[in-house]
Amino acid sequence: MRNLFEIDEWKITENTFDAEKQKQAESIFSLGNGSFGQRANFEEKYSGSTLQGSYVGGIYYPDKTRVGWWKNGYPEYFAKVLNSCNWIGINVELDGEILDLNKQVVLSFYRELDMQKGTLKRKFIVRFSNGKELEIESLRFCSMANDEIAAIRYSITPLNFTGNVKFTPYLDANVYNHDANYDEFFWEEDSHKVDVKKGYVCVKTKKTNFYVSTAMRFSFWKKDELLDIHPNYSSKPFYVENNFEHYLEKGVTYHLKKYVSIVSTLNHSEFSVIPRSINNVRDAYTTGFDPLILDHIKAWSDIWEKADIQISGDLAAQQGIRFNIFQLYQTYTGKNEKLNIGPKGFTGEKYGGATYWDTEAYCLPFYLKTSDPKVAKQLLVYRYNQLDKAIENAQKLGFKNGAALYPMVTMNGEECHNEWEITFEEIHRNGAIAFAIYNYIRHTGDESYLLECGRAVLYAIARFWVQRFNWSSEKNEFVMLGVTGPNEYENNVNNNWYTNYIARWCVSYALKVHEDLKDNPGPMVTSSEVKEWQYLISNVYLPTLAGTKVFLQQDGFMDKEQLAAKDIPESQNPINKHWSWDRILRSIFIKQADVLQGLYLFEEHFDEETLKQNFDFYEPKTVHESSLSPCIHAILAAKIGRLEKAYELYLRTSRLDLDDYSHEADEGLHITSMAGTWMSIVEGLAGIRVTSQGIHIKPVIPNQWRSYCFQIMVRNQLVRVEVFRDEYQIQNTGSDAIIVACTEGELTIEAGEHKIITNVITTV
Amino acid sequence: MRNLFEIDEWKITENTFDAEKQKQAESIFSLGNGSFGQRANFEEKYSGSTLQGSYVGGIYYPDKTRVGWWKNGYPEYFAKVLNSCNWIGINVELDGEILDLNKQVVLSFYRELDMQKGTLKRKFIVRFSNGKELEIESLRFCSMANDEIAAIRYSITPLNFTGNVKFTPYLDANVYNHDANYDEFFWEEDSHKVDVKKGYVCVKTKKTNFYVSTAMRFSFWKKDELLDIHPNYSSKPFYVENNFEHYLEKGVTYHLKKYVSIVSTLNHSEFSVIPRSINNVRDAYTTGFDPLILDHIKAWSDIWEKADIQISGDLAAQQGIRFNIFQLYQTYTGKNEKLNIGPKGFTGEKYGGATYWDTEAYCLPFYLKTSDPKVAKQLLVYRYNQLDKAIENAQKLGFKNGAALYPMVTMNGEECHNEWEITFEEIHRNGAIAFAIYNYIRHTGDESYLLECGRAVLYAIARFWVQRFNWSSEKNEFVMLGVTGPNEYENNVNNNWYTNYIARWCVSYALKVHEDLKDNPGPMVTSSEVKEWQYLISNVYLPTLAGTKVFLQQDGFMDKEQLAAKDIPESQNPINKHWSWDRILRSIFIKQADVLQGLYLFEEHFDEETLKQNFDFYEPKTVHESSLSPCIHAILAAKIGRLEKAYELYLRTSRLDLDDYSHEADEGLHITSMAGTWMSIVEGLAGIRVTSQGIHIKPVIPNQWRSYCFQIMVRNQLVRVEVFRDEYQIQNTGSDAIIVACTEGELTIEAGEHKIITNVITTV
Repeated sequence: MRNLFEIDEWKITENTFDAEKQKQAESIFSLGNGSFGQRANFEEKYSGSTLQGSYVGGIYYPDKTRVGWWKNGYPEYFAKVLNSCNWIGINVELDGEILDLNKQVVLSFYRELDMQKGTLKRKFIVRFSNGKELEIESLRFCSMANDEIAAIRYSITPLNFTGNVKFTPYLDANVYNHDANYDEFFWEEDSHKVDVKKGYVCVKTKKTNFYVSTAMRFSFWKKDELLDIHPNYSSKPFYVENNFEHYLEKGVTYHLKKYVSIVSTLNHSEFSVIPRSINNVRDAYTTGFDPLILDHIKAWSDIWEKADIQISGDLAAQQGIRFNIFQLYQTYTGKNEKLNIGPKGFTGEKYGGATYWDTEAYCLPFYLKTSDPKVAKQLLVYRYNQLDKAIENAQKLGFKNGAALYPMVTMNGEECHNEWEITFEEIHRNGAIAFAIYNYIRHTGDESYLLECGRAVLYAIARFWVQRFNWSSEKNEFVMLGVTGPNEYENNVNNNWYTNYIARWCVSYALKVHEDLKDNPGPMVTSSEVKEWQYLISNVYLPTLAGTKVFLQQDGFMDKEQLAAKDIPESQNPINKHWSWDRILRSIFIKQADVLQGLYLFEEHFDEETLKQNFDFYEPKTVHESSLSPCIHAILAAKIGRLEKAYELYLRTSRLDLDDYSHEADEGLHITSMAGTWMSIVEGLAGIRVTSQGIHIKPVIPNQWRSYCFQIMVRNQLVRVEVFRDEYQIQNTGSDAIIVACTEGELTIEAGEHKIITNVITTV
Repeated sequence: MRNLFEIDEWKITENTFDAEKQKQAESIFSLGNGSFGQRANFEEKYSGSTLQGSYVGGIYYPDKTRVGWWKNGYPEYFAKVLNSCNWIGINVELDGEILDLNKQVVLSFYRELDMQKGTLKRKFIVRFSNGKELEIESLRFCSMANDEIAAIRYSITPLNFTGNVKFTPYLDANVYNHDANYDEFFWEEDSHKVDVKKGYVCVKTKKTNFYVSTAMRFSFWKKDELLDIHPNYSSKPFYVENNFEHYLEKGVTYHLKKYVSIVSTLNHSEFSVIPRSINNVRDAYTTGFDPLILDHIKAWSDIWEKADIQISGDLAAQQGIRFNIFQLYQTYTGKNEKLNIGPKGFTGEKYGGATYWDTEAYCLPFYLKTSDPKVAKQLLVYRYNQLDKAIENAQKLGFKNGAALYPMVTMNGEECHNEWEITFEEIHRNGAIAFAIYNYIRHTGDESYLLECGRAVLYAIARFWVQRFNWSSEKNEFVMLGVTGPNEYENNVNNNWYTNYIARWCVSYALKVHEDLKDNPGPMVTSSEVKEWQYLISNVYLPTLAGTKVFLQQDGFMDKEQLAAKDIPESQNPINKHWSWDRILRSIFIKQADVLQGLYLFEEHFDEETLKQNFDFYEPKTVHESSLSPCIHAILAAKIGRLEKAYELYLRTSRLDLDDYSHEADEGLHITSMAGTWMSIVEGLAGIRVTSQGIHIKPVIPNQWRSYCFQIMVRNQLVRVEVFRDEYQIQNTGSDAIIVACTEGELTIEAGEHKIITNVITTV
């Protein structure tokens, strides 16, 4: 695989302008601050192929679906995160010719995403048709220190002339979604105003009535000297601009500094969004570009201090993992309980920017280990706050007594996916949401969360499962019919092992929590429920392959033609692009970890032989056509000593978007799978497990690497792990001792202690 | 159930104007001639709630679907039969006030569908706001004698005044489909012209480029005297009109006779549609209204002579069965091999007017027994002509070697349904198409059809099935995974008994045909195929319920909660309106005959005990939420002596649309299920079976009926059967002897012989 852009440990860079790569680059060089995000579109006009994208977290439109209206209980809409006001716009005009990299001759071009600082820089020289040359450097950021602020420094130097250049900084909210079922325009204008060097546009979404106010101010500088300019201004619905001509001296650099604030009714009242955006941008203007960017860089530095993974000896791997961590934090910072992690973050429109089970299954473990526990807690609170909607959702499907079914996809707690085989049947998501609570407590010891929020969710989920099983008088056990497991290349199957297993676990965990907390007033499980649940737990059918320790993915699995993924002719891969859906469904091929997903979550329930037999049974049948699949296999492979396989699987996603393996980076990035890659290193290669006692560790190191190093949060304190080729080191930087089960047995590492373990490290 | 309209043995009538019933009446009083059809909309303007509908057979638009674009092999469009040019329009204006039954006071109203004559009549008196009263009588028909012609006699009498009335006969092709995925307009204008007392509009469909030319002429009469009028005329795109005022004398009746011809490129070249429509309408105009209508009535009389069922003692049943026969022949006459039978015929837009397996499974047996064999043969030829497309369709899904999968829904041979669980998986339709060939030959003895067309279809279908089975090393038999059976309340099941059974039968019948015909040049089965097919036939897995003679609908069926339809609370019926789709899927409830459909088709393969056990197992679980279900159960119930059940099930569909049981007649009628009702009488109550030797008969008679009587075609000759309460009579009106297996054993009935059998008739 060729690298798409240059390799650097902290930067993604591009040294030539390639219009063919522009949409990929727009995704990969995206910026975000957890609250809003912006694809790497150009400030100035660009008439070439581009996907403009400016997204505001939590602001969505319920795009009416054409799918499934004919069946009862179908969602009526698919929520779309909206392409919103273009706030980066600065048009440049020279002698009547508009600056446009699709039109002028580009003499040089450099683009740089600095992941350490969270900044996007471009530097390029263009020659206009009259021979005049301009050098432009733009630097921008979405502030991590103040998540309602962004700023741009747009610098321009006439290289071979002295003369007038016209500048038009603007805001344009007349923006269409690329992904719209009916080519509808999703916005209405509330109001706009424009004045000298400032303006705002406030728009609201149709139907959902979210207000988003975007305000700008700007200043113009000759080197370090603030110039007194007198721009014209104008406006029309959805649009405000200033424009001015300035006489530029040859060889001198001028700066247009544009400050923007984006404020929405997700966090503020309709009454206050406009004044707040205006005040924010005034404050930013007063503070100035340099102090603002320093605060922003400091915020990133705080993140990196905890979350960084350092790999020495393999620059591509180093860049890859940092890119993943960077994009995850750009997408979600844990500051706002109303937000969550869309599969494409703020880098594209696809998947509607909504919340999937990816959050609990893949992202939560990442945030648990790299951030203050309150970040992960916000993700749990997000679901807790939507419990009523999950109960409503279950009611629509005929469930009673406060049973909850969380949606497959949601913006506000309502289901908004629209294929029945997913919406109605891929119900294992409920299990991941319960497991997330368990996992959070395992990592943090924060039992109070169970009392305040967690148990209500757990009981409601248990009630769902108890009703969802039915008694089979033929099998004399409880069965679960008509589900879709994590492997979406099966639909409407009976007794999916993963779903049955996690469902039983949910009920059993809910019972344990009930037992622990029943003396505290609050949500309760009735005594008849306790009996019913206990009976269920003891009588759940789990399909197995006779004579082995293999768990069967579902009833009838052995009726399939027994093939391996390597039997698929290369020309037919990926099968989802070459095979009809029915053929995929009845084939044995597995899209993503299913039984193995269960073994990953509940590893400690099974002996190693069971893990091995199942891995060897399922891995050859798995086509990994979901980016969420290889990481789970990698972690299990490492666990059972299939080290080469583990490394091979890790590599499959380590630079998935950076090198655009799947040829779809132009549409946006695979944000949630990035957490899986992180897990492949920490849980896979390093063999880290967090238990209620401390951590387990059993590291391996790839041949090419000299060392790798990361920190993880264990019970609110940081543990630093560094793995070399011949030893590994554990440093407890916290204030309490921790217990580490490692290749030397169980060690206690005191607060501040730095332990070197010289036990043999396996290499791959 | 209250009757919606008046009861009469040959007529549907309505004695008061009820705007609430208008859309139901528009469907029920529809006219058609197999080539085009027209809902019972009013000639004059009507501003009340209405569903305008004028449909031309075979003219469709490929409406782009939003469903399923994301999966490989999905059809890209859903074909819609189009609402086309309004040809009935005649506006009437009195002193500036437009005649509109939604505006004036309606003093009396009478509407009559005469099924014997195939005419629609309305007679009503309205009082205008100025107190003037008009009596109107309109009479119209779509000619069964010339299927490109329709005519209207619009008669008007001023009751209490003498004065001017303005008439505007027009054609208006500016017609939108109610059912359009994107609210698109499906037509473009080709041309229009208008002149004194004549005009035409020729339009073409977007994308499919079908041309439809509609031409009109009209004359105006004072009683029997042709008046010399001088109308104005005008036109605009898609529209032509004439208009004239005439001074009418109080108490005198004036007639506007409007002749229309509808000609399309389904049957003619683009070059000739316009002149042909103009010539047709000139001929009609020259012939005149009365001779035209007499020809039309004669054509209907020829149909009734063969197809009528007479029931004495039960007027509602008499009207009901004639309504069904009438609508079937309005929809399909067998004259055109390019046409087929849409589930709603020409009475509404739903189901897109396309061809379903309903044709082979339900309609073909009706036409086989009531018409000249060439009518049924056209239905077979329709599929034969689409064999290449069926092979292409199978190729898209990965099948090879000329395997054919016929589409679930089609206009031209391409699949145009759009739910994967139907399109890809409800493949048993292939079986019905093969069985139709077998059934045609059983009825007609026309073996030459096999040689010329049938075998090509049979071999291609067999090739599909052979590839669609796969070997289960666990079961040591061939299994078929991932199908949807006739019971669409299950999706993606394994080893649906019906599908496995009919698939095996198809292969075995193809082999037999090959054995019989292999010495005739033409499509062949290779010798290795012969071996492979034989091996398959002997090793097909068919699920059964251990210890019984019950065939299991599919693998895992006994894991379901074992409930009966009577356990569903009344408030939750029908479940498809009250339950979510997943709940329906995992419930035991059966939408329509599935295992029983197989027992119906292959009755002679099973002993009576098997039929009984399966009927008693499945009937209680069947909710009959398809109008195609009760008839199959009724026939089986009669066969095994469950006579009350048989009659009860017959009653469920006998007046389904006439009394609008399902509250959906406003959208159109259930044309294909009407054939099922006919079968409930002939095959159910009368116990008729046609074999290659002759017929079987074993009649019962409902208590309320004095007698019933019908004719059936057996080997190209008519056999008349009359069942009384204490005897039944068989009359062979043909020229050859037939063999009748009846309650008196096997009788030979000579040509012309009339046999009375006084054996005891059972009553129900």
